[in-house]
Amino acid sequence: RYGEAEAEDMVGVVTGLAWTEVGGEILTIESVLLPGKGVIKQTGKLGDVMQESVAAAYSYIRSRATQFGIKPPFFDKRDIHVHVPEGATPKDGPSAGIAMATSIVSAITGIPIRRDIAMTGEITLRGRVLPIGGLKEKLLAALRAGITTVFIPKDNEKDLVEIPENVKKGLTILPVSHVDEVISKALVRAPEPIQWDDSPEELPKAPEGGVTALLPH
Amino acid sequence: RYGEAEAEDMVGVVTGLAWTEVGGEILTIESVLLPGKGVIKQTGKLGDVMQESVAAAYSYIRSRATQFGIKPPFFDKRDIHVHVPEGATPKDGPSAGIAMATSIVSAITGIPIRRDIAMTGEITLRGRVLPIGGLKEKLLAALRAGITTVFIPKDNEKDLVEIPENVKKGLTILPVSHVDEVISKALVRAPEPIQWDDSPEELPKAPEGGVTALLPH
Amino acid sequence: RYGEAEAEDMVGVVTGLAWTEVGGEILTIESVLLPGKGVIKQTGKLGDVMQESVAAAYSYIRSRATQFGIKPPFFDKRDIHVHVPEGATPKDGPSAGIAMATSIVSAITGIPIRRDIAMTGEITLRGRVLPIGGLKEKLLAALRAGITTVFIPKDNEKDLVEIPENVKKGLTILPVSHVDEVISKALVRAPEPIQWDDSPEELPKAPEGGVTALLPH
Amino acid sequence: RYGEAEAEDMVGVVTGLAWTEVGGEILTIESVLLPGKGVIKQTGKLGDVMQESVAAAYSYIRSRATQFGIKPPFFDKRDIHVHVPEGATPKDGPSAGIAMATSIVSAITGIPIRRDIAMTGEITLRGRVLPIGGLKEKLLAALRAGITTVFIPKDNEKDLVEIPENVKKGLTILPVSHVDEVISKALVRAPEPIQWDDSPEELPKAPEGGVTALLPH
Amino acid sequence: RYGEAEAEDMVGVVTGLAWTEVGGEILTIESVLLPGKGVIKQTGKLGDVMQESVAAAYSYIRSRATQFGIKPPFFDKRDIHVHVPEGATPKDGPSAGIAMATSIVSAITGIPIRRDIAMTGEITLRGRVLPIGGLKEKLLAALRAGITTVFIPKDNEKDLVEIPENVKKGLTILPVSHVDEVISKALVRAPEPIQWDDSPEELPKAPEGGVTALLPH
Amino acid sequence: RYGEAEAEDMVGVVTGLAWTEVGGEILTIESVLLPGKGVIKQTGKLGDVMQESVAAAYSYIRSRATQFGIKPPFFDKRDIHVHVPEGATPKDGPSAGIAMATSIVSAITGIPIRRDIAMTGEITLRGRVLPIGGLKEKLLAALRAGITTVFIPKDNEKDLVEIPENVKKGLTILPVSHVDEVISKALVRAPEPIQWDDSPEELPKAPEGGVTALLPH
Ligand SMILES: [Ca+2]
Ligand SMILES: [Ca+2]
Ligand SMILES: [Ca+2]
Ligand SMILES: [Ca+2]
Ligand SMILES: [Ca+2]
Ligand SMILES: [Ca+2]
Ligand SMILES: [Ca+2]
Ligand SMILES: [Ca+2]
Ligand SMILES: [Ca+2]
Ligand SMILES: [Ca+2]
Ligand SMILES: [Ca+2]
Ligand SMILES: [Ca+2]
Repeated sequence: RYGEAEAEDMVGVVTGLAWTEVGGEILTIESVLLPGKGVIKQTGKLGDVMQESVAAAYSYIRSRATQFGIKPPFFDKRDIHVHVPEGATPKDGPSAGIAMATSIVSAITGIPIRRDIAMTGEITLRGRVLPIGGLKEKLLAALRAGITTVFIPKDNEKDLVEIPENVKKGLTILPVSHVDEVISKALVRAPEPIQWDDSPEELPKAPEGGVTALLPH
Repeated sequence: RYGEAEAEDMVGVVTGLAWTEVGGEILTIESVLLPGKGVIKQTGKLGDVMQESVAAAYSYIRSRATQFGIKPPFFDKRDIHVHVPEGATPKDGPSAGIAMATSIVSAITGIPIRRDIAMTGEITLRGRVLPIGGLKEKLLAALRAGITTVFIPKDNEKDLVEIPENVKKGLTILPVSHVDEVISKALVRAPEPIQWDDSPEELPKAPEGGVTALLPH
Repeated sequence: RYGEAEAEDMVGVVTGLAWTEVGGEILTIESVLLPGKGVIKQTGKLGDVMQESVAAAYSYIRSRATQFGIKPPFFDKRDIHVHVPEGATPKDGPSAGIAMATSIVSAITGIPIRRDIAMTGEITLRGRVLPIGGLKEKLLAALRAGITTVFIPKDNEKDLVEIPENVKKGLTILPVSHVDEVISKALVRAPEPIQWDDSPEELPKAPEGGVTALLPH
Repeated sequence: RYGEAEAEDMVGVVTGLAWTEVGGEILTIESVLLPGKGVIKQTGKLGDVMQESVAAAYSYIRSRATQFGIKPPFFDKRDIHVHVPEGATPKDGPSAGIAMATSIVSAITGIPIRRDIAMTGEITLRGRVLPIGGLKEKLLAALRAGITTVFIPKDNEKDLVEIPENVKKGLTILPVSHVDEVISKALVRAPEPIQWDDSPEELPKAPEGGVTALLPH
Repeated sequence: RYGEAEAEDMVGVVTGLAWTEVGGEILTIESVLLPGKGVIKQTGKLGDVMQESVAAAYSYIRSRATQFGIKPPFFDKRDIHVHVPEGATPKDGPSAGIAMATSIVSAITGIPIRRDIAMTGEITLRGRVLPIGGLKEKLLAALRAGITTVFIPKDNEKDLVEIPENVKKGLTILPVSHVDEVISKALVRAPEPIQWDDSPEELPKAPEGGVTALLPH
Repeated sequence: RYGEAEAEDMVGVVTGLAWTEVGGEILTIESVLLPGKGVIKQTGKLGDVMQESVAAAYSYIRSRATQFGIKPPFFDKRDIHVHVPEGATPKDGPSAGIAMATSIVSAITGIPIRRDIAMTGEITLRGRVLPIGGLKEKLLAALRAGITTVFIPKDNEKDLVEIPENVKKGLTILPVSHVDEVISKALVRAPEPIQWDDSPEELPKAPEGGVTALLPH
């Protein structure tokens, strides 16, 4: 039934947590790969802030691709479509950032995401996890939906004192400060880093005179 | 006459069901192939939510192309135009999602859609069928238009208790939880999956050092 | 004089019929070919619905190009510009659809359109002709402008009982259910279908293993 | 001084006539060629209707390029910029259409436009000249600015009875029904048509089976 | 200090004059070259009219490139960015046109602009200088900022009678009717024209039959 | 904890200072490199003025690339994404300009930025630093966040008399007039200029006749 935890581990599918006027709710996030050129397509009536958080998540992953076992040329050949059902319900806010990142890494690597977890947290461009609002409502919604483990921002750890005991007993709550912790634990197996060296063929030769450029590596 | 079930099985043409202020109505959805580059063009005064649901349906089909017997390079050479007459009537909502997907698969494969069926259901990016509103009004409209079989979301099965007996007698109602069930039954013959392996030629060789990438397959 | 039937048969020029607050009016539609890449350009203060109906007419023609004697690669080398003078008057609605299609086919094939005809009818993506409003006012305007033959949608045939006898006497009224009927009669000679087979060179070879794709043909 | 007839014949510069709340006014229209790809750029606070009339004028010229001695590949290498000073004054309406066409042909062919003429008239996609409003005010403005010859639409000829005698004496008024008449007289010498045959190399060969396409020529 | 004349002659930097509700003000305009494709980028909260005047200035310069010693292929390799600090202050109007042109020519040629000058005047597509408003306020602002020489439109010369004597004594006021006069005097040395002939290699050969096109040269 | 100075020197991460209705606040700015074509992507709910200031900062850096040890072809292969968390908070204004420039240079060169510094100042296209508002509030916010050194515009030096003594004691305040001063001191080591000569291969040869173009160098 839609609105509950998934029945099996799935590639590209992750459970986020939303906070609306009427309480918390789980938010399924889906990503699929398409032939393309590195574009990220977004649907599901997402507001500007949520769209920017998808963009930030995506750039984080591209800029650290090899950390997740992704060869950089991959992005020359594939688009990614991120969709958040239910399509008629407006969604916004930055707190799905780490869920977006996790969904995208799963879709690209083909490694499924554990079906019994949920997560909430804004992501920055270097993968830091920033605090979110509505922690209590979100945890209640997770419990109600049959989730067993929830990743929350380290900076929200202080808010756990206000969470009812039964919720804290029913859920394993994992405070995180970096999205890499989330990805390595939320996927059924952690992606393995690869080596990649694209400098030689990608940039033109230095001109006569032998200048050494200070390029990142 | 327009507004009734079709007189013959047609490629790319399917009957959706709309729910408006004045009751249910059937909604003809047409798709045709055009030379192009994989773009999906939409016309018929479609609102943002309906346009996003077409995009989700299309991405689902592209990401599972081989399941429907479609070679992936197909999308490098063809656009798809989806049109919903009557052009002056605004349409919106996600509930035509599975009809959009069915119309698109029929247009691409060239397999006609059975003319006596209708369908309603939101589609997700991995093909799940989500519940819709206005079930009663939609079923009445289908019956009125001469439809004999209607696909509805599994999650709407519970609403069937409120449907008048004569409607349930006059229609074969098929609850579905995945769009693949719809496609295999709504087309006059189910598309046959093919094998396809595009990894070797599509991605550049690994550099010296023999790295193994974790690419999806 | 502008606002009357043309003085000679012209390529790409057709008379549509509009229905405004102040009665019916004839609407000249012009199409010309330009070097390009298959884009359709529209001018003349056309509203969204009319622009979408031009798009639907154009896709119908592209998807059936060979029926009209048009080699598909034609669209790789030519744009089409559709203009509806008078440029300061806003126009909208789907009822010029079949006129748009006729104008475009004439422009592409170079076959002139009979100067003494007019037409009204929404077009769908597979060429069906849907009913329109304002039939009486439109027929009066056609008669006034010196038109002798008017194509109307088959589904508007029932409305002919309300049309004054003198109008019905003064005009040959041809109800049609498909745009192909219009095109074959409105052009001074019907376009002749051609054979075309683009599969072999357009799609890449199947990989080793000999898969047979279910592509449309 | 700006707002008067030019001091010498100029390439790409023509005098149009505008009709505003405060009377008639002359409108200088300037076109220049730029390296490019056939794009037409427009500046000078032009409203949508005026922009569409520039587009119609430009398409007319492209579709009849050889009539004006222009080799079609010309448009693959050049953009055209049309500007209407004074940049802070909003301008709109279709009546500058024939002036736009004349300015563009002059810019492309390099043939100057006579400095003592002005013109007003809407242009259609096949070069027809449609009637305009404000004829009296426009002719007065032309006279005031030192213009000696004015092209007006043939369909406005009937309005000449309302024009004061001194205006009709002071101006040579040339009613025209097609823009080609304007261009051949307004330029200091008429452009000479050329022959051009691009079919052979532009369209791919017919496939085996020897189909003859009905392409325009 | 910002808001005063520059301390040294600079490439691409010129002083314009603005007229706001609170009086005149100097407006620094900066242009730099970037690798690119001939695009002109604009920042500094510029209104539509000012952006169009930059576009007109740029097209004037491109269309007369060789007059300023610029080889036309230059524009295939470089973009130009025009910025008007202070970024939070909205700016609009056409009167910075000749300053924009001067700044762009300086940036492209690398010839510095004299630091003690300012200028105001609308530019047309063929380089004519049109009159502006607020002459008195602008001249006062120039004097206050330490400027010694101001270019004004020839058509504003008549307004000089209203300017206080001390302002006219403190400034060298140069009325100009064409932007080329401005450019040749405002740059520390006038750009030298070059010869360039791009016809032979840029346009395809005439087809058999030896047609002579009337191309501009 | 977010909202405080960083725990270590980081590449592409710099602390800006914002001034809002409720006082000063620190603003973390992040930049990362992506494969691409020289596009600069911006997220974090940035207003138009802030987006233009990023564009100005980026153009300054591109136009002086070699000064920072960056080979110009670098920009043909990389995009830059600038993000300002927290994504739900709107940000605007030009005063983050020098922080944007510093973040971008760090991301490109791979040289970390000192973690104990902050900065505020508008940047112009040639690197000048313009004055900002809210100096007192910004310095207080910096002190509160554990910052030890703050770069401010030279033109704000006069406002230091209004700053409380304890703030001036707790912070090293460095007035600057050019962004190069900031970059050389804020990065853990100053970028080293390189030589680069792209004229020979980038521009086509002069035609016969040996013209010497006045190109910048
Ligand atoms: Ca829900
Ligand atoms: Ca949120
Ligand atoms: Ca209906
Ligand atoms: Ca709906
Ligand atoms: Ca009319
Ligand atoms: Ca209509
Ligand atoms: Ca005026
Ligand atoms: Ca007008
Ligand atoms: Ca100021
Ligand atoms: Ca102004
Ligand atoms: Ca904060
Ligand atoms: Ca600010």
